[in-house]
Amino acid sequence: MQFEGPLALRSGASLGSYTLAYETYGSLNAGRSNAVLVCHALNASHHVAGTYEGQARSEGWWDNMVGPGKPVDTDRFFVIGVNNLGSCFGSTGPMHVNPATGRVYGADFPVVTVEDWVDAQAALLDALGIRTLAAVMGGSLGGMQALSWTLQYPERVRHAVVVASAPNLTAENIAFNEVARRAIVTDPDFHGGHFYEHGVIPKRGLRIARMIGHITYLSDDVMNEKFGRILRSAVEGEAAGLDYRYSTQDVEFQIESYLRYQGDKFSEYFDANTYLLITRALDYFDPARSHGGNLSVAFTGATAKFLLVSFKTDWRFSPARSRELVKALLDNRRNVSYAEIDAPHGHDAFLLDDVRYMGVVRSYFERVAHEIQAEGSAS
Amino acid sequence: MQFEGPLALRSGASLGSYTLAYETYGSLNAGRSNAVLVCHALNASHHVAGTYEGQARSEGWWDNMVGPGKPVDTDRFFVIGVNNLGSCFGSTGPMHVNPATGRVYGADFPVVTVEDWVDAQAALLDALGIRTLAAVMGGSLGGMQALSWTLQYPERVRHAVVVASAPNLTAENIAFNEVARRAIVTDPDFHGGHFYEHGVIPKRGLRIARMIGHITYLSDDVMNEKFGRILRSAVEGEAAGLDYRYSTQDVEFQIESYLRYQGDKFSEYFDANTYLLITRALDYFDPARSHGGNLSVAFTGATAKFLLVSFKTDWRFSPARSRELVKALLDNRRNVSYAEIDAPHGHDAFLLDDVRYMGVVRSYFERVAHEIQAEGSAS
Repeated sequence: MQFEGPLALRSGASLGSYTLAYETYGSLNAGRSNAVLVCHALNASHHVAGTYEGQARSEGWWDNMVGPGKPVDTDRFFVIGVNNLGSCFGSTGPMHVNPATGRVYGADFPVVTVEDWVDAQAALLDALGIRTLAAVMGGSLGGMQALSWTLQYPERVRHAVVVASAPNLTAENIAFNEVARRAIVTDPDFHGGHFYEHGVIPKRGLRIARMIGHITYLSDDVMNEKFGRILRSAVEGEAAGLDYRYSTQDVEFQIESYLRYQGDKFSEYFDANTYLLITRALDYFDPARSHGGNLSVAFTGATAKFLLVSFKTDWRFSPARSRELVKALLDNRRNVSYAEIDAPHGHDAFLLDDVRYMGVVRSYFERVAHEIQAEGSAS
Repeated sequence: MQFEGPLALRSGASLGSYTLAYETYGSLNAGRSNAVLVCHALNASHHVAGTYEGQARSEGWWDNMVGPGKPVDTDRFFVIGVNNLGSCFGSTGPMHVNPATGRVYGADFPVVTVEDWVDAQAALLDALGIRTLAAVMGGSLGGMQALSWTLQYPERVRHAVVVASAPNLTAENIAFNEVARRAIVTDPDFHGGHFYEHGVIPKRGLRIARMIGHITYLSDDVMNEKFGRILRSAVEGEAAGLDYRYSTQDVEFQIESYLRYQGDKFSEYFDANTYLLITRALDYFDPARSHGGNLSVAFTGATAKFLLVSFKTDWRFSPARSRELVKALLDNRRNVSYAEIDAPHGHDAFLLDDVRYMGVVRSYFERVAHEIQAEGSAS
């Protein structure tokens, strides 16, 4: 959908006309009260659920969570997925032409923040005629957007479902983002962010960035269970069997093969400037910052009800970070449900099927559905 | 010191004549029974202690641990530091000329293992006329060498002091090594490992490798305490004060500045091929491997007494890994002391001053000194 803007950004810059790619699932009810906005994290998109006709392996990134009869049941809810500004899946981003200069934005695309994304999402809801969300929902960076919704537009959000998220990044989180960005920016094919004009892609940097990301998404335990010290030759049933190759550059261990594959795949489809923008949005998010670092004060204005979920083995956004949020909300006597799931998969768990996790989200949305129904029959 | 070789390597290759750079501190006693070999980790060298005359900031890498009156007291012990083969501080390595071809080794330097290093160290001891070590000692990869000494030359080691080490790398450890290696190898200035001939250095890759390393050396806690979310502008007292710059490429947070500095510094002095070799030696070390993965069986032949030390916040070589070693040694009814230090600094703690850590090592070496003295007067 095309918007005329301008959209004022937190950086002081603004975007003129812009496009937001979005998808919807299910039907908006007569009272327009059953809308659920799903916010995406780093490398996902507006394609939250379902498949595209005739396209194999085109499942949405949260297809296990959203759909008919699923925890977020599209037989009851009208679910909206939107690609964020600066991303590379249809919404206006660095790969598009800057109307002011006639040149592809590249590195000149303005820095966007979680707050800016929420403003753009609100404009989309306006256009769709939706005043109030039954719920806003997201995992990781998506959870930060859900949190920000409750602060920027408290009157428009009834429930916020915040999974595997945090009130801000730690120094270690920022450090991993910075290494990934440096890998991209120092790739000679980056050309200061204007690689499109040179007909190249900084794939080396993107591969490294993705490999680092993958390590931090998984827990040490699940990596050991899945890959351990298994040699690639053993997996491929080579005659060499269990012998080391004694090479520094060949793949020796299965984990290396996995990471290289993930890096290669990512470098084929993800935009390098988008990677910089989205990791920076993560770095910058910090709602307590304008309140002297006091998270409880930051959430004074939030009126939504909350479900928070964290995963015990998530060392990227650890349960301790979710507990900080729970405390800040309880300090404000907000209605909060919190589940800490003992899943082995690390940060990745928020995208995976875990029966307890899915059960918690399902129950919560059943409650949301009942509220909507009760109000519908009361009004 | 020059050795004529050939030195047979685990890979099947061999090294003809080779040089080992070493330093010694203190005096060898008449019984030649007070020698302590200190093994280094990834980026250190034979320069363990003391300073070079007229060179500011030339302290050895373990100068807080080794020296007169220090925990490893050079008034009592004859301490030997040796630079490992394949390293870049004086011993034969990839920067040297391969006598067989007349060309700089570069990527053709043979893959060396922990076991190979120990063999070379043993040859050095032979040349120095030292039959038995009072102790072999090391942290991290240095600890792996100390462990391997007790397996390869059990009769030549009386004590092994193994700090912040592990019986092998986990999948996550290997994964971090692999990302660092890929960053180096895919740097266009790497030239397949023969960059010397091109008059360039793959500094981009080395910087990324070092940044990743630094993140894993520190604990999340100490990073938050040291850097947190402090902005560089705040540190530098800029007029901008606490405002964000809204930039993806400029340094915004202090942690970014720190990592970039560490990466730059490292890329100035460390050899890229050495980085590949040493991380691979880490990956390959796995004494249980030839015993069906059974660590207790692997240590059947070890006769040394052991001190193991780990640090609670070390997530690179966690206390759990040291406990695996303790268990394997106890299964063999070995004499083991074990200290788990509640230091906040992560893996880096093995290089830092912690009064409990230093105290444990000091007491242990006092016991070793008493043993030597008792035997000296008994004989």
